[in-house]
Amino acid sequence: MILIGERINAGFKDIKAAIQNKDGDVIKKWARIQANCNATYIDVNLGTASNKPEDLCWMIEMVQEEVDTPISIDNNKPLMLKEAIKVCKKPPLINSTTAAEDKMNELFPIAAEHNASIIGLVMDESGSPTNAEKRVENAGKLVAKAMEFGLSPEQLFIDPIIMPLKFMQEQASEILKAVSQFTLFTDPPCHIVCGLSNISSGAKHKALINRVFMAMLIAHGLDAAILDVTDEELINTILTAELVMNKNIYADSYIEAFWKK
Amino acid sequence: MILIGERINAGFKDIKAAIQNKDGDVIKKWARIQANCNATYIDVNLGTASNKPEDLCWMIEMVQEEVDTPISIDNNKPLMLKEAIKVCKKPPLINSTTAAEDKMNELFPIAAEHNASIIGLVMDESGSPTNAEKRVENAGKLVAKAMEFGLSPEQLFIDPIIMPLKFMQEQASEILKAVSQFTLFTDPPCHIVCGLSNISSGAKHKALINRVFMAMLIAHGLDAAILDVTDEELINTILTAELVMNKNIYADSYIEAFWKK
Repeated sequence: MILIGERINAGFKDIKAAIQNKDGDVIKKWARIQANCNATYIDVNLGTASNKPEDLCWMIEMVQEEVDTPISIDNNKPLMLKEAIKVCKKPPLINSTTAAEDKMNELFPIAAEHNASIIGLVMDESGSPTNAEKRVENAGKLVAKAMEFGLSPEQLFIDPIIMPLKFMQEQASEILKAVSQFTLFTDPPCHIVCGLSNISSGAKHKALINRVFMAMLIAHGLDAAILDVTDEELINTILTAELVMNKNIYADSYIEAFWKK
Repeated sequence: MILIGERINAGFKDIKAAIQNKDGDVIKKWARIQANCNATYIDVNLGTASNKPEDLCWMIEMVQEEVDTPISIDNNKPLMLKEAIKVCKKPPLINSTTAAEDKMNELFPIAAEHNASIIGLVMDESGSPTNAEKRVENAGKLVAKAMEFGLSPEQLFIDPIIMPLKFMQEQASEILKAVSQFTLFTDPPCHIVCGLSNISSGAKHKALINRVFMAMLIAHGLDAAILDVTDEELINTILTAELVMNKNIYADSYIEAFWKK
C-alpha cells in the first residue's frame, strides 16, 4: 500500500501558522512523525496560507532536511508545480490533474519530464461524476492521455473522488464499482488512490467510517491513499486487508513487524 | 445484514456441559444474550456432545422458551433435521447442504416442505474448492437445484467456504471474487453467507482479521454471516459497511440506534 501522509497541510492550524512564521520545526516534526509511520510520500499543501511558489518550495525543503521520504506536491497550478518540482530530491507525486483536456495537456508533460508520478481525478470540464460509469469514462481519458505523453501505468494514480457518506450516501457503492473497473485498463494496472477522509466528512464516527471504507476499497483494488498515517487502527486495517488480497505474506506478527520498522 | 449467532455450539465447553447435564439455563442465557444483540437467527449445534435427535430438539426448545428468534439448525443429517425442524416454531435456516447431488436431493425437499431457508456450501463430491471458478460452478449447481425444488432465491444462502488466512492465504481473494459473481445468478439474488471466524483460525489478531475480512466480503455482496453477535467492533464494522453499500439510511447515531434496539 502506498501511504501518503496528509498532515503537512495548511488546513491544520499549526501548519498554517508555521508557513506564515517560517517555523521550519513544525514542518520537520510532522515530516519525522509521518516518516516514522512508514509514509511512502509526504504530502505538502499550502492551502490558503500562501500562493507563492517560494513558500511551497520552503515547505518541501524543510521536509527534505528532516527525512528522505518522497514528496507529494499538493497543488494543481503549473507555475507552482514547476518551481516545486525542481527542489524535490526524489521523483515526487503530483497531486493532481483532472481529466479535463487542458489540465492533462499542461500537467502530464511536467510529470513525464521529471519522471514524477501524478494523481488524476476522474472529473472533467463538466464537473464531478455522480455514478460509476462517468468515473470509469473519465479514468479512461486519464489513462489514454497519460500513455500518449509517455507515462507508464505505474506513474498514474487514478482517484475516483470520494464524496461524504453523510451527504451523498449513494456515491460510496458507485465508487467501489468504479474502482473495480479501474484495475482493468492496463496490465500492470495504474495505481488507484483516494483522499480517504472525505468519506467521513461531517459524520460522527469518522475513524470507524474511514477504516471500514478503506478495507472495502482495498477489496476492489485500491492500492494508495492520502490519509492519517498515524491512525494505528486504520493502518492495521490496511495491513490486514492487504494480507487478504495476498499482497504480503502472512506472519502472526504482521502488525508488530510493521510498527517496529 | 442477516446475523446468525454462533454461540450455542457444543464446541464451547459450557454448551457441551449444558447438553450433557440438560442444563437449560445455559442455553437460555446465550439465547437471550444473542437476541439482545439483534441476532436474526440463533444457531444451534450439537457438535460431538450427542448424536441424538432428542438432544437437538431439546436445545431448540430451550432457545424457544427464552426468545422468539428463529433457529439455524446446524446439522446436515436428514434424520436429525427432520426431527428438529418439527419443533421449530418459525421457519428455520438449515445449516447446511453441499452441492453434492445426493445431499441436495435429500435436503432441498426438506427445506421446501417446511418453507425453511438453507445454507448451501460450494463444495461437491470432489471436496472443497480452491479457486473462485470452482466456487462459482458449485454455487450454480446449488442455485439450479434449489429452483428445481421450488425454493425462492431468498431461501438459498450460498456459502463460499472460508479458509484460514494463516494456512491458505491465497484463498481469501478467490473468495471475494466468487462472492461478487454469486450476486449475478438470480434477481433478486440469493443470500450469501459465511462462517466468518474460519478466516482467523490459528491467527494472532483474530478479531481484527474477522472484521476487516467482513467489510471486504460485504463490499462484494455478502449479506449474512455466522458470527459472534456480541463482538461490538465487528457489528459496528458491519453497520458501517452496510451504509457504504447504501443498504440503510445514514444517521449520525446509526451505531447507537442499533445497540439501543
